[in-house]
Order: sequence, then structure tokens, then C-alpha cells
Amino acid sequence: MIKVTIWNEYQEERQYDHVAKVYPKGIHGALYDFLSKNEDMEVKCVTLDMEDQGLSEEILNDTDVLLWWGHQAHDLVSDEAAKRVQQHILNGMGFIPLHSAHYCKVLKEILGTSMCLRWKHDEKEKLICVNPSHPIAEGITEPIILEQEEMYGEYFDIPKPDEIIFLGWFSCGEVFRSGCTFTRGWGKIFYFQPGHEEYPIYYHPQIQKIITNAVRWAKPVNKRNNDYDNVEVKHE
Amino acid sequence: MIKVTIWNEYQEERQYDHVAKVYPKGIHGALYDFLSKNEDMEVKCVTLDMEDQGLSEEILNDTDVLLWWGHQAHDLVSDEAAKRVQQHILNGMGFIPLHSAHYCKVLKEILGTSMCLRWKHDEKEKLICVNPSHPIAEGITEPIILEQEEMYGEYFDIPKPDEIIFLGWFSCGEVFRSGCTFTRGWGKIFYFQPGHEEYPIYYHPQIQKIITNAVRWAKPVNKRNNDYDNVEVKHE
Amino acid sequence: MIKVTIWNEYQEERQYDHVAKVYPKGIHGALYDFLSKNEDMEVKCVTLDMEDQGLSEEILNDTDVLLWWGHQAHDLVSDEAAKRVQQHILNGMGFIPLHSAHYCKVLKEILGTSMCLRWKHDEKEKLICVNPSHPIAEGITEPIILEQEEMYGEYFDIPKPDEIIFLGWFSCGEVFRSGCTFTRGWGKIFYFQPGHEEYPIYYHPQIQKIITNAVRWAKPVNKRNNDYDNVEVKHE
Amino acid sequence: MIKVTIWNEYQEERQYDHVAKVYPKGIHGALYDFLSKNEDMEVKCVTLDMEDQGLSEEILNDTDVLLWWGHQAHDLVSDEAAKRVQQHILNGMGFIPLHSAHYCKVLKEILGTSMCLRWKHDEKEKLICVNPSHPIAEGITEPIILEQEEMYGEYFDIPKPDEIIFLGWFSCGEVFRSGCTFTRGWGKIFYFQPGHEEYPIYYHPQIQKIITNAVRWAKPVNKRNNDYDNVEVKHE
Repeated sequence: MIKVTIWNEYQEERQYDHVAKVYPKGIHGALYDFLSKNEDMEVKCVTLDMEDQGLSEEILNDTDVLLWWGHQAHDLVSDEAAKRVQQHILNGMGFIPLHSAHYCKVLKEILGTSMCLRWKHDEKEKLICVNPSHPIAEGITEPIILEQEEMYGEYFDIPKPDEIIFLGWFSCGEVFRSGCTFTRGWGKIFYFQPGHEEYPIYYHPQIQKIITNAVRWAKPVNKRNNDYDNVEVKHE
Repeated sequence: MIKVTIWNEYQEERQYDHVAKVYPKGIHGALYDFLSKNEDMEVKCVTLDMEDQGLSEEILNDTDVLLWWGHQAHDLVSDEAAKRVQQHILNGMGFIPLHSAHYCKVLKEILGTSMCLRWKHDEKEKLICVNPSHPIAEGITEPIILEQEEMYGEYFDIPKPDEIIFLGWFSCGEVFRSGCTFTRGWGKIFYFQPGHEEYPIYYHPQIQKIITNAVRWAKPVNKRNNDYDNVEVKHE
Repeated sequence: MIKVTIWNEYQEERQYDHVAKVYPKGIHGALYDFLSKNEDMEVKCVTLDMEDQGLSEEILNDTDVLLWWGHQAHDLVSDEAAKRVQQHILNGMGFIPLHSAHYCKVLKEILGTSMCLRWKHDEKEKLICVNPSHPIAEGITEPIILEQEEMYGEYFDIPKPDEIIFLGWFSCGEVFRSGCTFTRGWGKIFYFQPGHEEYPIYYHPQIQKIITNAVRWAKPVNKRNNDYDNVEVKHE
Repeated sequence: MIKVTIWNEYQEERQYDHVAKVYPKGIHGALYDFLSKNEDMEVKCVTLDMEDQGLSEEILNDTDVLLWWGHQAHDLVSDEAAKRVQQHILNGMGFIPLHSAHYCKVLKEILGTSMCLRWKHDEKEKLICVNPSHPIAEGITEPIILEQEEMYGEYFDIPKPDEIIFLGWFSCGEVFRSGCTFTRGWGKIFYFQPGHEEYPIYYHPQIQKIITNAVRWAKPVNKRNNDYDNVEVKHE
């Protein structure tokens, strides 16, 4: 059983009617609805307005894979909460930041680069697999057309990914490394670009399939239990 | 159910008493014994002296993951058989060449380099994981000591691996990239250095665990069914 | 001084008026004209119709970096010549296959995959750098617009590149890993997609800059002089 | 001309006689002596006890490649200074942390992992090249023997390196990824393990050759001058 936690800042869905219309249960609700159908997953949702911002040691200890959606409230996440998440990733927890979560505190801290990119609303995207043998691409053999998406374009200031699984083509003349994996410590990270709050991307069956695949891929293989420090090897 | 085929040249076990003593059922027999215990695997063995050298289209079509052990008979494998295996790997079949199979025709053809290395009998090896989040390292949290092993040393003339999972330390002052993954087309390859015919390496529980993990990792994610050629995209 | 050899099959420029009009001196001539201006390069051209197909041991021994343009005559290159080139790459010679040379015998043999892709004439390309710190990207800080180019699209069946330097965006809804590096043995390879025989791509100053950078990057760092085989390490 | 700055915490050389004996001019002095002989380099030294800890904007603006040696004083480097260095790396400055600098604030921040490793004094090391075509390996064709070195052993908690150039073998049964490259933003990083303060490693001609090669490799290819933020692409 994979213990999945979905974290959402959950602001725009409550502030803006046009967003609420697309995601009436919140973006976390849309993610919950399809992930919780999987018999190998036990899914819970947490949000920024909860105690400890939904990111207590207790919750993180009970999480195999953490999905993250954030946009306008990145700065409201406390440094302590971000640091806790970072440590749990290094200890083995999977982490799946979605779309505008490219700019969340956790990802910036753990990847170390600026995470800057170019963006533009309301463009057509074609998502193309360049890594057909990767588990996250299972069942995704044809390009995915997203008629309306927020364009994210290069140069995307990320460290060299372990694997680039999807490239995004945008009608306005931009490309993007839209699905990338990173390993940090014992933990696996999958950054996935599709999913603007104003468009119904997370209801798309193939997008759901990719996120589902990613959760299975990101579950911990081994867990780290030693403390963080250099270790002296003694003479025997 | 993963369909596993173990290919062995099966010569030294029949020619030399000291090898037969270590592997009385052949090396394929030793691999079969532990792999066939897994409920998610259906295992069969084939050898060089069988029809089509054990590598007919029929057999390969019925294989998800092919393990390969060869040493002195690399040149006896026909070019046609090697080419068939290469095509099946590109179409998605997993491939796990073991130890001296570094020098087999299939691996040389599909990786394109000379595959040369340095070697020496009868050295102590310590196998150390440098990729603890990789599925092939599941459950392997401590170094594996092999009191007697054939040393393989750098420079090992391989393409840059996708992932280096294990490094080998040898008492005579050599190191080796002992567990490496490669992706070619739709197929996954794991080269694993331990396993000389004169030493009982394949009875070691952790070595068995790694090979078992590798089979699960290498099973096809997607299968390719299109013919091999450039494809013209027509004007609509 | 970098010894550069430009190999061209040199057929279409002599067969078709519309190609001859674009490349009156042959594609090799266009490449020669800008490369030979560099004071650190000594450039010569060879073509398929020369003795030993322009690929004798003598010529290859005198080459630091080999550029390759081929299209319709891939099969006319002899297996022996292709094998010679492959060995020289493994020994340290740089290799720069351009555009339709993705499908040349040497590249297929040394990379081991099918090298298949999707293609379509007469599309607009935008070439975008995703690796600004790589020497091949020196001075290329803005996207390059090619109003007319042959589209090459994914899935491109190559091994995972060491580095992806450029992505290509095409107006018809395709993307491509347009500039990729590979290392094989002691040799460096840069595959670069722009450059169809019917379009004046090789006169574009930024395309010339990239190819010039690539030659400097691909020159041998160390040369291999040992014979190809496994080496036994003797007890001292 | 490459502008090289050598930063040293410069403490143990002034506190301990046995260290001062090995490095009477400081470790920075030993590095300066061989680097400043190169006609393409302009070298200066800075230390922790200088104004702005030797890491002012002015000094960093005048630096193409920054070498870093630190050990016991990592925590004394201010967060502001570490952040300045990180930004300069992302903008294109090369960075070469040596030996115990694996644990310096800058490297931890920019790589995002714990950087933990295993260590032990007074072991023999054999440094083995596994990447003979990399510019940092130029002229290093044989293993380097260091009779006395501080052992650093795996698991070394780093992100997957872009390139592993050297592996270290240690007599006590440990291996290490001793020479690794990383790219972050526009900047290149080379971490190099040899170089304990108690042993005369930095006087070894081949170690000097590697560090010299690394400086040339790490010099900026392009410089970033835009501000750090996401960029909106406007409708034209």
C-alpha cells in the first residue's frame, strides 16, 4: 500500500469563481478523486491552512509520496516546513511537484537553482514522450493534446534531470522539458508541468495516468534511518 | 507474470570438473532455482546447443526479460541470433548480461563500444551501492563481500551508463562499475559484474536479490510494434 | 592545430539543379568555407567517390575531428570503411554527423539503436538552447529561427545522450532533440539536426558558430593506443 | 585570460605545526604556486579573515573560476557570503570545491543534499580515470597513487553527477566518486576529493595537472545577465 499525501495551497479555488468552477473540490480534490481509485494507494489531502501547514513530522512520517500544488502562496510556506519536507525527501519520500510548484520553496531548496522559466497563458500544448521505456510513460504511446494550457518555456533553470520523459510543444513557438525526474538522497522527484488552475487538465485521462504512474515510481525503495553527518570509519 | 528466459552457453560446466562441482546444474540451473521461486515470474532456460541456439523468434517473442551468461563461446553465437536479440531489446525486451557476458556479441552490437576491461582471478570483492533509491538496490543497504571473485577493473570501455548502481572494490587495487543500466529503444539493460563460473557467487542471497530486482525492473513498460524506419509525416 | 576532415557523399548537389543552386560547391564546400577561416583549424574535404571512399587509414590517422554529411547513399559506404571510422572514434577521433547523417552506417553501428525519427519537408524551426554552459553553446544566447527546414520529430530512437544542448520546435507541432552529445570510448560525438540539402542552413552565421564550437569541443583530449581486448592483470 | 580566485579558510595551517610544515604558505599558497605559472590564468588568493570574508561582490565579479578549500570553519562563512557565491555560480562562475569543501555551505546549498560521506585518516588511495575523453582528464592516462590520503568513502550523498571522471580506491576497502562534475544554471562545478591538509597532495604533479585542467574546463562559456525571476512572454 502506497501512502500518498496531496498538499495544496488551496487559495485560488476559494478566491476566484472561474477557478472554483473548474476545480470545485480544489485541485487536491481532483487529484484525490482519481488517485484514491487505485487499490494500491491510500490517499489523504492536506492544505496550507491546516495545523503545521499540513506538513507536520507525523504526517510526513506517514507519507510515501507527496504531491504538491502551489502557486501564489509559495512564500507563506514556512522555512521550517520546507526544511522538514526536504529532509523527508532525502530520507526516501517521493515528491511530485506539479505545474507552478516549480517555484515552491522545497523544490528550490533541494535542487539549488533559480527554477526560473518563461510563461504565457492560453496556449495549445502537445506533450510528447521521449523516454518510452520509463515506468512513468507506461501506456502513454501517443502525444497528448491539451487545447488550452499555460505555456512554460525554456530556458528552465533546473539541474540536469536524471531523465527527461516528456517534452512539451507550445503553439506560440516554445518548448519545455515538461516531465523530468531527479534523485536526491534516498528520494525520487518527478516534476510535471501540465496543470494550470484555470484549465481542466487534471481531468484528462492520460494526465491522470501519468500522475498515477509517477506515484508508483516515486514510492521509496529503501528508507534512510541514519542521522545526517559525516561518519568516521574506525580502525578495527 | 514476467516471462523470464535464461540463456547460457553451458560449456565450462560440462568440460571442467571444478566448474561442474560449483554449478552441477549449469549456471542457468542456479539462476533458475532462485528466480523460479518468485510467484510473479515464469522462468525457462535455453542453451547454445539448442535449435536456433535457443534464440528463435518464437522464444524471444515469449520473453519479457532475457538473462545471458557466456564466456568462451561468444563467437559461436551466430550474427543472425545476435541481431534478433538486439531487435527484441529495441522493441522492449529486458536484457541482463552477467559477468563475462560483457563481451558477448549482443552487448557489443547494441552498445557499440569495445567492452574491454582488465581482469584477474581470485580476488576479494566488496560491492558497494551508490544509488540507494534505484529499484535494483531494493533491500541492499550494506556492502556485499565476495571473498573470492574474478576481478574486473577499469577502464571498462562502455558508453556512459544511464545509472551506476554498484561499484566494485577489489583487494588488488582496482575498482569497477559493477552494476550499470542502459536504455536502448524501448528496452532496458542491466549489466552486472559478479558471477565467475569457478566461484559460487550465484548462491549468495544478496546477489540473488539484486538479480531478482533487476528482472522486475527490466520488464517492458511499453512494447514497440512499428517497423524500423524513418516515418514521413504527411501534410493533412 | 585541429585537423578537420569533412566527408560528404556529394550526390544530390551534382544530380539536382535546385540543390546545386543552394550548394554550388557541395555541402562540404559550404562547411569548408567557414571552418577554414579559423586559425586553429586545418581543414580538408573528402567524398564518397574518392579512393577508399575518402576514409583510408591514412586519412583517418590524420584527422582529429570528422564531419559527416550523407543522405541517399548511406548503403554505399562499405562496411569496412564504416568499421574503420568507428574504431577511430573509439580511439579518440571526434565525430560530427549532420542532419540526415543520423541514419549513416557509422552512427547506427556505434550507437546501436535504429536511429529512426519522423520527418517532413518545409517547416519553420526554432532552435532553443537548454544547456547554456556547454562549450557548443558558446555565444548562442538567443533562439535561432530557421524559416525553412526539414522537420525531424520525436520519437528519435537514440541512446540517452550525454548532453542535450538544443531542442528544436517545429511549426507543424513537433519537437526534436536537435543537438546531442555522446561519448564512445575515447571519442566525442555531436549530432546536429539542422541542415537539409535544399535549404541554405549552413550559411546561417549562428549555425556556423555552433558547428565551429562543436569542432573545438570534439577534438581528442587523450588518444588510445592500446589494442582492443580484455587485459589480464598479472600477479606481481 | 582566466581570472582565478582561490578561497581558503586558512586556519589549520596557522594553528598546527604539522600542517604548517606541509603547507607553509597555506593551502592557497600551494595552489597559487602552480596555477599562477599558467600564462592563460590570472590568480589571486582570498581568505576567511579578509573583509567580506574575501567574497565581496567586487571580488566575485572579477572571478571566472573560484577554488574553495575549507574544513573546520564551514559554519563561520556567513549565509550572505554563501548566497552571493551561489548566485555567481548560477550566473556562470566556475566553482571547484576541494576535498573537505564537500561540506561547505555553498556546495550544500547549491546541490541540496546532505553531502555526507564516510572518512578515515591515513589510507593509501589509487585514483582511477573512468572518463578518458573529458577535458579534466587530459594527460592523465595512468592511475595516480597517493601513498597517504584521507579516505572518503561511499555512500556519498550527492545528486547524480553530470560526469564521474575519477573513482578513488582506498586500501581499507572503500571506493569513492572522487572527481565529479555538476552544472547549475550557467555555472560549472568540479568536486575533487584528494587534498587533506596533513598530506602533501597538492604538490603532486598529476593532481596539479587535474586542478589546472579543471580551471580551464570551468571557465564561463556564457554569462547570465538577466535578473532571477519567471518571465512572462507577452502577446505580440
